[in-house]
Amino acid sequence: MRNVVVTNPPRADLAAVDKLAEFGVATVHEAMGRTGYLGPGLRPTHLGSRIGGTAVTAVCWPGDNLMIHAAVEQCRPGDVLVVTTTSPGTDGAFGELLATSLRARGVRGLVTSGGVRDVAELHEMGFPVWSAAVSAQGTVKATAGAVNVPVTVGGQLIRPGDAVLADDDGVVVVPRQDVDSALAGSQARLDKEAAARDAFRKGELGLDRYGLRAKLAELGVEYVTWQEYSG
Amino acid sequence: MRNVVVTNPPRADLAAVDKLAEFGVATVHEAMGRTGYLGPGLRPTHLGSRIGGTAVTAVCWPGDNLMIHAAVEQCRPGDVLVVTTTSPGTDGAFGELLATSLRARGVRGLVTSGGVRDVAELHEMGFPVWSAAVSAQGTVKATAGAVNVPVTVGGQLIRPGDAVLADDDGVVVVPRQDVDSALAGSQARLDKEAAARDAFRKGELGLDRYGLRAKLAELGVEYVTWQEYSG
Amino acid sequence: MRNVVVTNPPRADLAAVDKLAEFGVATVHEAMGRTGYLGPGLRPTHLGSRIGGTAVTAVCWPGDNLMIHAAVEQCRPGDVLVVTTTSPGTDGAFGELLATSLRARGVRGLVTSGGVRDVAELHEMGFPVWSAAVSAQGTVKATAGAVNVPVTVGGQLIRPGDAVLADDDGVVVVPRQDVDSALAGSQARLDKEAAARDAFRKGELGLDRYGLRAKLAELGVEYVTWQEYSG
Amino acid sequence: MRNVVVTNPPRADLAAVDKLAEFGVATVHEAMGRTGYLGPGLRPTHLGSRIGGTAVTAVCWPGDNLMIHAAVEQCRPGDVLVVTTTSPGTDGAFGELLATSLRARGVRGLVTSGGVRDVAELHEMGFPVWSAAVSAQGTVKATAGAVNVPVTVGGQLIRPGDAVLADDDGVVVVPRQDVDSALAGSQARLDKEAAARDAFRKGELGLDRYGLRAKLAELGVEYVTWQEYSG
Amino acid sequence: MRNVVVTNPPRADLAAVDKLAEFGVATVHEAMGRTGYLGPGLRPTHLGSRIGGTAVTAVCWPGDNLMIHAAVEQCRPGDVLVVTTTSPGTDGAFGELLATSLRARGVRGLVTSGGVRDVAELHEMGFPVWSAAVSAQGTVKATAGAVNVPVTVGGQLIRPGDAVLADDDGVVVVPRQDVDSALAGSQARLDKEAAARDAFRKGELGLDRYGLRAKLAELGVEYVTWQEYSG
Amino acid sequence: MRNVVVTNPPRADLAAVDKLAEFGVATVHEAMGRTGYLGPGLRPTHLGSRIGGTAVTAVCWPGDNLMIHAAVEQCRPGDVLVVTTTSPGTDGAFGELLATSLRARGVRGLVTSGGVRDVAELHEMGFPVWSAAVSAQGTVKATAGAVNVPVTVGGQLIRPGDAVLADDDGVVVVPRQDVDSALAGSQARLDKEAAARDAFRKGELGLDRYGLRAKLAELGVEYVTWQEYSG
Repeated sequence: MRNVVVTNPPRADLAAVDKLAEFGVATVHEAMGRTGYLGPGLRPTHLGSRIGGTAVTAVCWPGDNLMIHAAVEQCRPGDVLVVTTTSPGTDGAFGELLATSLRARGVRGLVTSGGVRDVAELHEMGFPVWSAAVSAQGTVKATAGAVNVPVTVGGQLIRPGDAVLADDDGVVVVPRQDVDSALAGSQARLDKEAAARDAFRKGELGLDRYGLRAKLAELGVEYVTWQEYSG
Repeated sequence: MRNVVVTNPPRADLAAVDKLAEFGVATVHEAMGRTGYLGPGLRPTHLGSRIGGTAVTAVCWPGDNLMIHAAVEQCRPGDVLVVTTTSPGTDGAFGELLATSLRARGVRGLVTSGGVRDVAELHEMGFPVWSAAVSAQGTVKATAGAVNVPVTVGGQLIRPGDAVLADDDGVVVVPRQDVDSALAGSQARLDKEAAARDAFRKGELGLDRYGLRAKLAELGVEYVTWQEYSG
Repeated sequence: MRNVVVTNPPRADLAAVDKLAEFGVATVHEAMGRTGYLGPGLRPTHLGSRIGGTAVTAVCWPGDNLMIHAAVEQCRPGDVLVVTTTSPGTDGAFGELLATSLRARGVRGLVTSGGVRDVAELHEMGFPVWSAAVSAQGTVKATAGAVNVPVTVGGQLIRPGDAVLADDDGVVVVPRQDVDSALAGSQARLDKEAAARDAFRKGELGLDRYGLRAKLAELGVEYVTWQEYSG
Repeated sequence: MRNVVVTNPPRADLAAVDKLAEFGVATVHEAMGRTGYLGPGLRPTHLGSRIGGTAVTAVCWPGDNLMIHAAVEQCRPGDVLVVTTTSPGTDGAFGELLATSLRARGVRGLVTSGGVRDVAELHEMGFPVWSAAVSAQGTVKATAGAVNVPVTVGGQLIRPGDAVLADDDGVVVVPRQDVDSALAGSQARLDKEAAARDAFRKGELGLDRYGLRAKLAELGVEYVTWQEYSG
Repeated sequence: MRNVVVTNPPRADLAAVDKLAEFGVATVHEAMGRTGYLGPGLRPTHLGSRIGGTAVTAVCWPGDNLMIHAAVEQCRPGDVLVVTTTSPGTDGAFGELLATSLRARGVRGLVTSGGVRDVAELHEMGFPVWSAAVSAQGTVKATAGAVNVPVTVGGQLIRPGDAVLADDDGVVVVPRQDVDSALAGSQARLDKEAAARDAFRKGELGLDRYGLRAKLAELGVEYVTWQEYSG
Repeated sequence: MRNVVVTNPPRADLAAVDKLAEFGVATVHEAMGRTGYLGPGLRPTHLGSRIGGTAVTAVCWPGDNLMIHAAVEQCRPGDVLVVTTTSPGTDGAFGELLATSLRARGVRGLVTSGGVRDVAELHEMGFPVWSAAVSAQGTVKATAGAVNVPVTVGGQLIRPGDAVLADDDGVVVVPRQDVDSALAGSQARLDKEAAARDAFRKGELGLDRYGLRAKLAELGVEYVTWQEYSG
């Protein structure tokens, strides 16, 4: 990792990202062929938010939030700040003051593989946060890192300017160049799901709707009565 | 594990299960001699639900929800679907569409050692879920498993038709043949607890109520003043 | 560990502790030079509480809550009960009946490195709890331990009578003799944060307010355009 | 769980178990349709052992080894002692003295979901142990449990008298009534693996040997050159 | 992730990779500015190996090793196979038969974020493995994935053809284009370390050698006697 | 935590510590009433060492080893260096160069709640290490901490000058003022264990030797035959 602050990365089209965010994390993840999910380790501090935006990334040393301060300056309206550390750590590198600064710049939320604090205050001010930990432990501002370089969080590569979507199911990244195809795929999936939902409400089974009875037979799954099984 | 779907297992009496559910998980667990608890790893996606029902079980391959679809068909009103995987996994094998299908069949909730998704939608539709993880990661429908065979979740054996109760304290299983004794034991415990609650409100101590002063003495626990201890 | 119940340890001044609690966990932790935080492993069972009080401590054997009963008697109005175990364990050693007893004695909440149960009932009665686990698993009353001896939770030493503060960010301990300096430090920090908040709202950057541009330069962090970085 | 010591459970035929043990854990697990594995959480304290025997089971309270002492008396030559706790715990409930006692009774090893200690001494005396933890933390003898009841470890049900096999890959249980079929299946698998090993040594590919090229095509996996992929 | 098998990716120069491997993981990681380390979660199944090679990558579904078979065909002498899964899993997707096949193709070892089995046999045949788990649990061959696409393991991006080095400290990746600069940096670091080692052996302190006394003073670290500190 | 380096703390008598170390961690832990064990999270990088010495302590920021360098200077022959971090971290803050420096000062080993690297080299030079992680990830030297202040590792308080013992069972701390009583207690326990070992070898049971049959009866544990249990 070079110790750089990269300025003005190209960003995904914000209007398109906004539309994408409405579909929700799970739908978009599916629409992209089940890719881009940042894993179950990132959770919202409070349930009930759904956001989307363009990524500004920051890489910090564990226990150090210097590069978050450098990242704030690179943020624009519509961005989501994505913070990671060079090795695992849970310290509360982000809190209400930084959120105030981000909000003043039009940033929509924070996603971090580390920790956050002031979560009551963040909730009160309506600034949504997804993190791996809540921790009051403070950090220093002593070590170099990077801003707007590609980062990996939860096994996913996030480039600055990529679309980042988050809700109660977690966080998904959509590469900048894939936003349009994700939009199309998500809409198609939504339509398909709406039809399935109606069918399921009326009692149709997934076994029939998805043709799974043949699959079960092909895999050798047998139907037996309880008496046969237990006897 | 045989790759089977077992049909029509005998179920615990639903009226009895309904009564049992009112006592709550902790009370029933105590009434059964402190057995049957599925452990602290299973948490509700949202606090505030309390359910009970009869178990339909499904064993899936990690990353695969084929057998959940097969299990849906085996569900009846009053059931709780219990899903586990052959090895640990967190993928979101269950979401809002499957919940819609289960609801149409009168199922009361889901308990899984794996992951769930669409948790905002599940909450909105009032379908309660206890799981080890929330994950948007999707699954395939490619590998055989089993439905309505005995499974273990959190170190507890769950047979199809057993009573499964869940609330904010987690999940407890009551073997089908033990529901009546659990009912009697829970009522007795409830009465005992009500009396203790009254006494504690008035200032009586557990030390006195449970005769623990003698126990402490027998174990050699001494009372010393701070001055004696620090001096 | 001696098997003792220590009576009447000196306690921090409750009026001062009450003032300290209003600052919140993160602010007090910072004011004490970033010390005393019990780590991200202790979480409130429900979000939204903020308490402070003087510590009564209990050390239990895993799976055993005998010493909690002994500790209740040592509690006074304004105390917070702090429970730990001799080795890691998640069992629900504390529930609604013990909370009823503590409330009758004026205790403000519970902090435990172990597990709690009856969390719906605890929430309903407004008794706040911070714990490492929620578990319905019951405990016995069979093994000696200690009350009001120094304990460590989350790497922090807690002496009986120390101030213990807890909110949505977790739990912090302030040594009894440091409460006054923590008060002064917290007030100073609050004032400083209020000024920073105002500045950040108006768009000032942390980079400028904290003089971090020089730091970045000193550490060799370079600013490059996206074109330079990618080219 | 009833607080009982069950005497003289029927055991799998020891000669058959001995033959089964030679195949190793992975082969037997496969031969039984990929069932019975106790998971990656149980590890040998030292690499290099391979044992098999008939299970004697013990259920202990966390932090308490009373029931291990009761279990020792129930052991016979050829047994493997399987210890679990009512809730998770890592304390060193088993050490060199208990191993000396077990060895005097002809027991072949220990499998535990908890902790062990004296591991240097256990290695020196050649008594193999598979556990979830190594911990010097001592235990009491104060709480009831059970011996020779069915237990679950790592999600697998183990009944007294079942065959338990362990090596560097972990531990597998073979139900008593399935030992013969496991023997036949393991031998068949061994023969098949020997043929595959020879073929692989000579450069044949699994793709061809197992007919996987068609599978890949059916699943839509495409072959592309690096130039096509990157271009 | 597209479901593709990418053929013939360009590889780092093997002679250069071989030289790099001799420096060891920690030295190369430092020489690259403390980047590329795959984290403490990947451990060798047996201590004592040190290898290097060019990456062939495989992405599998959890519980499925189909794509490992596809990857074998893409391997050449000097490669290291790097396997990951689309979501976390510990199943033993790799064992002695696949190692036999890889060895026949001149592959030097395996690195996986998942599980391996047959570890006694792998050790006996001298095929080194770094993994997150040892598990006898078997896998199916049912789901599509990818070969020779970029993957992330332990937060590091690995592209096919990159240099992968592994020893008792874990695994490090060196991007293909950085192998030469890593070689130069590692040699420089080795020389510097040799000089430091000599100095330390003779009693010189890091405080003096690295000029840290001034740093301590600048950070406000005070030297106090025990009497001053305790008094 | 004050940012101080405390010089010349009083140390436990080294001759007494040396005698104590011979008893091993588990025996000394028991002799002290089952106290002082640093938990199962600290493991030796290689099995087979047994050491004892007097503690020099260091508190570092995560990802930073500046204070280890300051601690080296405070070490004397017979010391064991104990390193912890202000919040959890796994980075390899200690390696072969620091070990060379410690060895030159007569230090016997390292105990750390963090990570170490160069473990092959450390093993080769015979410098024993107990740690929570092995990680090649490097650290900076940028942040203040403390040397020779009381620290907590694994829930145990360690003061500079305390006796620290370590072997394959982990690490135990004996407070400086308790070394003599620990010596006496350990010798008594050793004698008692030798007698028990002889008895167990001859077939006596713990049930009889420790009078546990009465305990089992008192606790209501019943003996039942398999037929009674299963019938």
